Amino acid sequence: LNPRPVYFLSDFGLTDEFVGVVHAVIASRAPGVSVIDLSHLIQPHDIRTGALTLERAAPWLAGGVILAVVDPGVGTERRPVAVEASDTVLIGPDNGLLLPAAHILGHPDRAVELENRTDAPGDTFAGRDIFAPAAAAAAAGTPLDQLGAPVDPATLVELPLPGPARENRGLKTQVLWIDRFGNAQLNATPLDAGPVTHIELAGGRHPAAVVRSYGEIGDGYALVVDSYGRLAVSANQRNAARELGLTPGDEVWLGRDQ
Amino acid sequence: LNPRPVYFLSDFGLTDEFVGVVHAVIASRAPGVSVIDLSHLIQPHDIRTGALTLERAAPWLAGGVILAVVDPGVGTERRPVAVEASDTVLIGPDNGLLLPAAHILGHPDRAVELENRTDAPGDTFAGRDIFAPAAAAAAAGTPLDQLGAPVDPATLVELPLPGPARENRGLKTQVLWIDRFGNAQLNATPLDAGPVTHIELAGGRHPAAVVRSYGEIGDGYALVVDSYGRLAVSANQRNAARELGLTPGDEVWLGRDQ
Amino acid sequence: LNPRPVYFLSDFGLTDEFVGVVHAVIASRAPGVSVIDLSHLIQPHDIRTGALTLERAAPWLAGGVILAVVDPGVGTERRPVAVEASDTVLIGPDNGLLLPAAHILGHPDRAVELENRTDAPGDTFAGRDIFAPAAAAAAAGTPLDQLGAPVDPATLVELPLPGPARENRGLKTQVLWIDRFGNAQLNATPLDAGPVTHIELAGGRHPAAVVRSYGEIGDGYALVVDSYGRLAVSANQRNAARELGLTPGDEVWLGRDQ
Repeated sequence: LNPRPVYFLSDFGLTDEFVGVVHAVIASRAPGVSVIDLSHLIQPHDIRTGALTLERAAPWLAGGVILAVVDPGVGTERRPVAVEASDTVLIGPDNGLLLPAAHILGHPDRAVELENRTDAPGDTFAGRDIFAPAAAAAAAGTPLDQLGAPVDPATLVELPLPGPARENRGLKTQVLWIDRFGNAQLNATPLDAGPVTHIELAGGRHPAAVVRSYGEIGDGYALVVDSYGRLAVSANQRNAARELGLTPGDEVWLGRDQ
Repeated sequence: LNPRPVYFLSDFGLTDEFVGVVHAVIASRAPGVSVIDLSHLIQPHDIRTGALTLERAAPWLAGGVILAVVDPGVGTERRPVAVEASDTVLIGPDNGLLLPAAHILGHPDRAVELENRTDAPGDTFAGRDIFAPAAAAAAAGTPLDQLGAPVDPATLVELPLPGPARENRGLKTQVLWIDRFGNAQLNATPLDAGPVTHIELAGGRHPAAVVRSYGEIGDGYALVVDSYGRLAVSANQRNAARELGLTPGDEVWLGRDQ
Repeated sequence: LNPRPVYFLSDFGLTDEFVGVVHAVIASRAPGVSVIDLSHLIQPHDIRTGALTLERAAPWLAGGVILAVVDPGVGTERRPVAVEASDTVLIGPDNGLLLPAAHILGHPDRAVELENRTDAPGDTFAGRDIFAPAAAAAAAGTPLDQLGAPVDPATLVELPLPGPARENRGLKTQVLWIDRFGNAQLNATPLDAGPVTHIELAGGRHPAAVVRSYGEIGDGYALVVDSYGRLAVSANQRNAARELGLTPGDEVWLGRDQ
């Protein structure tokens, strides 16, 4: 029986030793487990971006252990948890970070609260002292109910993620994510949008159609069906988000000329 | 039989989940294959820097699978390919990225075109949907001819990389790469250069001799034989490229006083 | 017998291929050895930060091979060494980088000088050509005395790391490290400090008590017992170091109102 891989996301950055030490803890407790980094450049304490990043990655992580640490409440009353969704285990703080991915992977079927105490010299690095040992145990095959005391999954913190809304100006959407290439992913799919001829945003109105590749865009902008099936405001080999001044949370209306 | 390692380079950055998801795809299709990251901080769409980075690394990657994705034409007519050079397989877009490394590793002996269609929700992430599955298969031992339809290697896109040229002012060279320490690698070796007493560039003329270590440089600049056997304009524990205003593509003449 | 993991720290950055090539060298010489990255974003030539980073990580690395390369003197007279401290081997330049971690892990019991010559095309990449092969050998089980000629551990370069000092204004401490979250770690423990009511620094005087979690801080600042058991000047979900203008090396007095 192969151990399960651990997929690891955090806001730890890559300059300090935090990420490496978490890897070391897992390697020493579960030799042979592979740890795959998803991102550690989530901005400090940005739970929403962490949750959306996990949600996007989730379809490719099924069957593994997801270790996610964006944890502004470390050392306080927020609960450290392990959540089972179908055959995947998600481990991290109960602050909304885990559930969007859990919903993609199935359903948060069962959950436990991890022991919130360690013998470490200080209480500020739960990633190392609480979450990594739990992830190592889960990857090595420890059943969920041996990781902590049962918790009602219905009590886990949900992160409100608004959907698109139909308005007179068109479909009101929100920017979820700006990727490295300047694509601005919206909270809408081609099915949500239907036919589109232009987008409207704080900076003005721009012609934009729904297309399947950057090469079809020409000199302006388009709504590309991105690799997650969502629409993204994009340009061809240019940074659309920078040009249009878009940032996460901004509103974009998808309109159709009469 | 051990699986071959996959060496992975891209312009995906380290903030988004792209790199981790590619690792996850390989881990699920070829468990036990190790994936070694070369760089993911190639500037978006900078094929030339990606190709030069792979070329420099190539001598240490022989026998593995090289997965390289700098792919401004994703989803268009450019071909996704796998190229065999001696006992190494290179996988990526046919846009010039792969061939400089292939030439170092032997010769692009055989090539196939990968199937350009997937069942993913969108067509913009060929690294995840086309190239990673091919790399996983190659690492696990699938022969090249089972990865796609044969392509004449002579039709693969070559990237023009100019050599140095002898001129009255001296040997005209070009900056290929500025590394993290500010060394400006030139497209010339000590053999190309012969004896040198100074360098000439847009910012003026500076004494410079060919040396083997930074410790020999003193307060000014020198041409250090770098770890790839090329000459680099360098300083000792200072950032030469920043001081001299050098960037990739700049011209530097290597001269000799009479 | 499982091979030992290699823990790897450097100032190589993540843009150039340096880190990946070191991984490739180890993979080809010691297949199956896992290499865990601690940090490669140490500022170029910043031996002190590299040494402190290794020292902090050390308790979680026992029994492995530590490969550390911050090496401004590459190619000069500085010695490449392997040092044994209890059951851990530390490999890198003899410039002060290794000893703080060795002291945490036990004691630098034995040391050897690595062969300082290679057949590489240039002499500027000891990480690839000298240190990585030694780390691969050590991880695969080669005994220390087969890695080089014996060196008296007492001759290894020590890095002076000042301790706190009692003064009239309070305990004089030094900032060792600013982490990603803006916590400013001091060279003092709660035992060193005793009761504290305020901190004094170049920018003024601020109330601050010793606490165990960020959640206890309120709107100002506190001395949090960090995850290494040292005191850190911190704020709750704000960047204390940026607000207070603290950088490594700065002095902070821990005072007590009468």
